Parts: sequence; C-alpha cells; structure tokens
Amino acid sequence: MGGSSRVGGQGLTVAVTALKKFTNFSTWFDELLLKAKIVDGRYPVKGFPVYMENGAFILNRLKSMLESLLEETGHKPVYFPLVTTEEMFARETQHIKGFQPEVFKIEQPGERERKLVVRPTSETIMYPMFKLWIRSHADLPLKVHQSVNVYRYETKATRLLYRVREIPWNEAHTVHETPSDAERQVREAIEIYSKVLREVGISYLILKRPDFDKFPGASYSIAFDAWNPDGKVNQVATVHNLGRNFAKAFEIEFERRDGSRGHPYQTCYGFGYSRVLAAIIAQHGDDRGLVLPPSVAPTQIVIIPIPFKGHEKEIIDYCKEVKERLESRWRVILDDTEDMTPGEKFYHWEMMGTPLRIEIGPREVSERTITITRRDTLERVKVEFGDLESSIERLMDELARNLREKSERMMRELITDARSLDEIRKILDERRIARVEWCGETGCADNIKENVGGEIRGERYDVAERPQGTCVACGKPAKTVVYIARAY
Amino acid sequence: MGGSSRVGGQGLTVAVTALKKFTNFSTWFDELLLKAKIVDGRYPVKGFPVYMENGAFILNRLKSMLESLLEETGHKPVYFPLVTTEEMFARETQHIKGFQPEVFKIEQPGERERKLVVRPTSETIMYPMFKLWIRSHADLPLKVHQSVNVYRYETKATRLLYRVREIPWNEAHTVHETPSDAERQVREAIEIYSKVLREVGISYLILKRPDFDKFPGASYSIAFDAWNPDGKVNQVATVHNLGRNFAKAFEIEFERRDGSRGHPYQTCYGFGYSRVLAAIIAQHGDDRGLVLPPSVAPTQIVIIPIPFKGHEKEIIDYCKEVKERLESRWRVILDDTEDMTPGEKFYHWEMMGTPLRIEIGPREVSERTITITRRDTLERVKVEFGDLESSIERLMDELARNLREKSERMMRELITDARSLDEIRKILDERRIARVEWCGETGCADNIKENVGGEIRGERYDVAERPQGTCVACGKPAKTVVYIARAY
Repeated sequence: MGGSSRVGGQGLTVAVTALKKFTNFSTWFDELLLKAKIVDGRYPVKGFPVYMENGAFILNRLKSMLESLLEETGHKPVYFPLVTTEEMFARETQHIKGFQPEVFKIEQPGERERKLVVRPTSETIMYPMFKLWIRSHADLPLKVHQSVNVYRYETKATRLLYRVREIPWNEAHTVHETPSDAERQVREAIEIYSKVLREVGISYLILKRPDFDKFPGASYSIAFDAWNPDGKVNQVATVHNLGRNFAKAFEIEFERRDGSRGHPYQTCYGFGYSRVLAAIIAQHGDDRGLVLPPSVAPTQIVIIPIPFKGHEKEIIDYCKEVKERLESRWRVILDDTEDMTPGEKFYHWEMMGTPLRIEIGPREVSERTITITRRDTLERVKVEFGDLESSIERLMDELARNLREKSERMMRELITDARSLDEIRKILDERRIARVEWCGETGCADNIKENVGGEIRGERYDVAERPQGTCVACGKPAKTVVYIARAY
Repeated sequence: MGGSSRVGGQGLTVAVTALKKFTNFSTWFDELLLKAKIVDGRYPVKGFPVYMENGAFILNRLKSMLESLLEETGHKPVYFPLVTTEEMFARETQHIKGFQPEVFKIEQPGERERKLVVRPTSETIMYPMFKLWIRSHADLPLKVHQSVNVYRYETKATRLLYRVREIPWNEAHTVHETPSDAERQVREAIEIYSKVLREVGISYLILKRPDFDKFPGASYSIAFDAWNPDGKVNQVATVHNLGRNFAKAFEIEFERRDGSRGHPYQTCYGFGYSRVLAAIIAQHGDDRGLVLPPSVAPTQIVIIPIPFKGHEKEIIDYCKEVKERLESRWRVILDDTEDMTPGEKFYHWEMMGTPLRIEIGPREVSERTITITRRDTLERVKVEFGDLESSIERLMDELARNLREKSERMMRELITDARSLDEIRKILDERRIARVEWCGETGCADNIKENVGGEIRGERYDVAERPQGTCVACGKPAKTVVYIARAY
C-alpha cells in the first residue's frame, strides 16, 4: 500500500513528474498567475495581491454561482461593517484567543485612543445585531450571507491566492430554534459548497477537524481540503456548528413556541474565493498553462482565423458568422489581430486556459465545417456548421466532466495508507496524503506533527470509516481514521 | 421668478408640505430605513452602517446594472488592495493634501511602525501598478473598474447612506494616448452613469465643479447632484479628467505610435451605491413608505389572497397559478401568512415599496381576472388572466416612467433663479436650488458660501447656459451660470 509504486502502477508517476506543476509548483504557479492576468504579486504591501482582469472575472463568477445557491436556499444578502470595537471583539473567550494574534487594527484620525478591530471573520460584528433582530421563534431561522474581504495577519510565509492577508470570501451565518435545525443547516451548507466545487471540477476531502483544530468558539468544524500538486492541502471552505457558545456570549435570546425563553443555536460557514481560484488553477492546469472549466472561463471559445492568400475576406466573414451564432450563449472572442501568427495565438490561448478553440481556414470555409480543439485533451474534431451549438455544448460538458474526473482520480491516487510515522513521513515527502488510524489523543497528534512534517486534518465527514487496528503513534486501540497532510 | 410662488402655481407646494419626507426628512428617512430593512444604524461604530436584506439587495442590483454597462464598454474588472503605504499615498501633492485629514490608518500586528493607509479612493493604489502594466500605445486604452468600499473619516455629522465612513462604490480608472481620448472617456462615463440613474428614475444636475472644489489632483471634475427633499443636494457620482498629473507623479510612461515616449492621459470616475440608494428612497418615497422602481425592487409583485369563507382553497389555488405564471420573469411573493389581515398586508407591502400588488378574492377567481394596484399612484386595474404578462409589463413600464417623470418635474421645479444673496438665502431656506450668474472669482464664491448657507456646485456640463448679466455677489460682468445648494 506504500505510495509511489501504487501511483506508478496507474501510470501516474510519469504523468506527474512530467509536469512542471508537480516538480516545481511555486515557479509554475507564480509565473502563470502573472502571464494569464490572474494576479499581480508585485504590489508593495506584503500579502495584498492585485487581482487582474481574469482573476477578478473568475472571482466574480464564483461569487455569482455561490450566491445564487445561497439565495435559492433562503440566505438573505447583508453587508456588515469592516470593523468592530475591541470590546465587542473580545466577547467570546475562545474566539478572541484564536484570532487576537492576527488582527489588524485601525486608527481613526479623530480618536486615536479608540482603536477598531478589522474583521478576521464577522461573528463578533454580526451577532450583537442578531441580538437586536431576534425576538421570537418567528424570526428564526435567520440566514444571511455576505461576500467581503477579511483580513488576517498571517505570520507564515504568504503565497498568492493561498495564504494572503486580504482574503476574499463569502461568509454565511445562521440562527436556529433547535440543535437539529443547526445540524441540518450544516448539511445544507456542505451541499451548497459541494455543488459550486463540482461546477468547477475541484476535488477535496470533507473532513471533521480534530477538536484542537476547530474554529475558535465552535462546537465542531467541517472543512473542505482540496488536493494540491505540491502535496500541501488547500482548505477551500469550512462549515462550523457553533452550538450556543456565541449566542450566550452575545446574549442572543428568543421566545420559544412554548413561551419559554432561551439561547438559539448557530452555524457559520465560509467559502474562500481566492483559494478555490487557486485550486482551479492548480488542479486543472498543465505545462501549457491554465485549463479552465467553462463555468468560470473569461473566454470560453476563441476563434482563430488561419489566413490563406486570396481567401482572407471569406475566412474572416465565416469567422464572424460563427462568432455571431455563438455569442448569445457563450463568451466568445474572435482573435483577428495581425501581429501574431496562428501558432502564436494557439500558444497564447492555451496558456489562458480557454476551453475550446475554433480554427477556420479555407477548407472550413469551403466545406462549411468548423475545427474545434479541446483545451484539456488537445483533441481536434471537425463539425458541420449546422451542428455547431450542439457540438459546442457537448464538448463543453465533456471537458467539464473530464476535468472533474481527472481531478477526482488524482485525489484518490494521492491518498495512501500508512502504519507508522516513517511511512507517513515518506508519503508526505512524496507530496501525498496519508490515511492512518488514531487513538484520538492530543499527545499522539502532537507527536505525529513533530515527527512527520504534516498534521492531522481530521476524519471523513461524508463517509463513515471505521478503524480496524491501532493508533499509528502509540499503538493503543484506534478510535478513528484520519488524514494527515501538509497544509497551506 | 422667486421660489415658492412658482412652485405653488404648479400645485407643488401643497403636495410637498403634505409629505413628511419634505417637512421632516430625517425622521421620515431614518424610520423607513429600519422598518423596510434597508439599513440598521444601531451598529456601535459611528459611520459604519449595517445593510439589511433589502438594502443589500438593492446595492447588489445597482452593482450588477452598472457593472454590465462598464463591461459592455470595455472596462475590465479588477480588485486592488484596501491599503497602501504612506509613501505611495503621498506621491501626488494635491491629492494627499485633499485626503490626508480623513484617512484611516492600519496597524499591522508585527510591524507597528509601518502604518498602512486605508483607501479613501484608489488612485495611489492602482497607478504604481499601471506603471508596470503600461509599456506602449498597444496597452492603451487601459480601462478597469472595481466595486469596493472606500473609507473616509468624515468629520461632518454622519447620516445613513449619505454621509458614512464606509462607502460602497464603484470606481473606474482609465489611461489614454491623447487628451481627446480622455475627453471622450469622460463623456462615455457620464453616459454610463446617466443610463443607470435613468433605470432607477433618479433626477440630477450634471455639473462641472468650480476649480476650488474639484477632485484633488484632477484637471477638472464633473458631478451628478441629485435633488433631495430637504434641499441638500446629494452627489451620487463624479467623473474626473486627471490630465497627466498622476501619470507624472507615478511615472507612468508609454511609447507612442511615432516611437517617442511620454506620459499618458487619465480619467477616473466613481459611482456611490449607497448615495444612489438614498436618492431612490428620498426622491420616490412617500408617506406610506418606499416606492421602488421595478429594476431594483427586491419584491416586484406581491400577491395577497383576500380570504372568503368557503372559498379558501380556490382562492389560494388561483393565487398559486398566478404566481407560477409570473415568477419566471419577475420577483414575486405570495403573502399567504395568516397572522395578518389583508389590510395589514397592504400596509406592509406599501411600506416596502413593492411596485405592484395583486389582490385575489372570490370575485377574481370566478371571473378569471386579477386586480392590480400600482404602488406609485395606488390606482387599481382589473385585467383578464389571459392578459396577465402584458398587463404587468405595461404597468411596470408606466410606473418606472412615472417615477422618472415626477422626479424630473421636481428637479425642474426646485431650481429657482436668484439675483441677490438675499434671494439665494431665501431659496435655500425653502429647500430649493438657486441658479445665479457668477464672475468666476473665488472671493465671490467664499462670500456666497459665508452668507447664504450653501455653496456653488458648478455650471451645467450637459447644457450650455450663457450668462446675460452680472455676478450675483460683486456685480461685475458674469462669466458663467452656476447652481447653489446646500449639500451632503
């Protein structure tokens, strides 16, 4: 069950090491971000990236996909302030302990002594208002969401999109009458996030974090850990059941159906737009550049005329006819600039990750056909003009499905069982994820962390995995099956 | 030409004073904001409002309407950081002089000595990157936009939506080869903003600000001043021609078509989402509450069953049939709760500003008709079930047009010519806008400001108005016709 041989047996080792993204992820990633106009990291304040046109476009698409699902399920949009007072921020004990070291503070010109805390997340900003809004069970469930930036002074090395100090995300917060309503809400949140991630073909593990790693103030935390080519998992989203901890700290009370009063149950969950963008680039990209799922690609189809002496006009006319036919349904560009050869254009649009490329030369004109190349497989197909829309639709679907399936395959391949700390270390060194049995003791978790260079990320939430043997660290009977990885 | 009589002649004085929004604007406005779930002003940090579900919804609609137009005209989305360094912020002399007093500063946990400046606007954040992005004329025009919050420590009294410290807006920034390209861009920006404001029926003056009131660092500034029931105009958007001031300060250079090098020409423009929201509420609202244009209304149609003993089921079934037919095109709610009478529901949805109300009782069921009430005029019409969509569409259009025309009429009525400081003072006291002739000297502008309690807002940009006489302050020959008002 040891790592590389198993993957090697699937022909994956070759594929993996042939890609710069696996052998030298940082360089591959950073170069691509700038060249494909995703992010410019040259901004003079550390941890504050500039989202260029394609990065901003994809963030906006993710936002709109997620917000639609949230609103369909009854979450109302809200916008809460960026800042809170130090007093409000300190209300929930665990919460402040967890976040205090990394908060930015704001000085106001007129009142230097009263510093404001910049949100690292919005519980302490929203919940004092929830106290005012909630009177009785008729006000519940309360379900709100906002897409905003949060700010955390990360002390670990920053990395564009993965680990930054200005973090674009969506956070939803809900309040319920009963603990089972809150449980149901946790499941709804997981379903919503899973749907968006499926739309962009991202694979991940849904893990219940160990207690020592839960959100400060939560009863428990569920996280989506996406795989990454360098082996460091990428937490793209989290869902927390807050129980009544915050309701008590912020004195949120309601009148129950039976007339009695009490604290309600809360959940909150966050979806990291920039980390999902990172996952899209990292999971699907290849040595030619980005490979974008159609759902978020700024340009979904590029049309490239292949000039041929004496046929220039009819080729361009046909290109325009094709474009007109497609542009009501897809984001299409006709690249008819004359300062690049068709080959240079192919190279450029492959780098940009455009899902489908249409080439039109004299033969396509005379045959009334279209030659389409898929970005993921680089396969070319020729289709009749009359079948254009249905062919494009089919190819887009196939491409999206292929990206998703390839990524799922990789996720499965990366998970490798380990029975000793040495095996875990070897697996992590090979940029994989180790699955082990654990007794549940924090001492063993610390031991693992110190010795293998990775940490326990948690047990599967969506799949019940029963331990069969003993703890990988202490040898006592195992209580749970957990995943160990390096992490961003 | 003196104020009130002219308006009185049009029957407006009566209409005006009958409305609480004209006689006691602040109370009317603040009560409505909370009741209609627009904004909650009870947040404990001054100048930082909480946008509730309907406020956030309308902000999002405005954003999406504006961003579509910006992107159709070639503006690319970007997201720049919230903060810059003090050094970068200080680059353009006039700019820092204008904004320094009102900037918030951020302390970073690890490096307290290096404070960061929170954007009051993003010129000094974007332009160092433009320097890296722009090499030659092929990179121009550069047109980008972002919808973000900016932060200004307003020292005047804060007022929800109008004058806050956290300001949701869209800012666009463009770079051009020639001064005439920049001029054209100013006109394009004005056209885009006019279109959005037209969609929500807001009336305003497009004014070229006097030099002493232009954007710090700009060559000149154009502003959209919307009328307000309390007479204080509401600047909802501005468009600035920056010339080459910032390009020089930030060393932005490009290679021209002829091979020579030089600084490009820039424009920037901002659209204040919360101020436009304020204008929508203030211009269209009445004593029953909000009156929302269909383009931004969270609920466009509410269906209210009128219960009748023995017919409950057929009434609800018919309501559902009507709803199903409408909900693919409009945002529809069927209010079938049983804890309110139909009358209470009417009252509630009128307060919420819902454009159309459908009432369905036993008569509508038996006749297969629908009774529709317009929120603006409260007129009721009965339509056949078969004509439902076309009737709704017509009523929505008429309502939107009526709101726009009523607001335009009010704008025209509020403008009153004045020939002396006394006349100006009287006009402003009557919550109107004075039109005067001015010599163009700053001394006279100061004199006016000190004596009348309002300020020169500028001359019309869209209409050429030639002065015929003398300066209202000094009596010397006038150079321009300007508008004077109190302002937020």
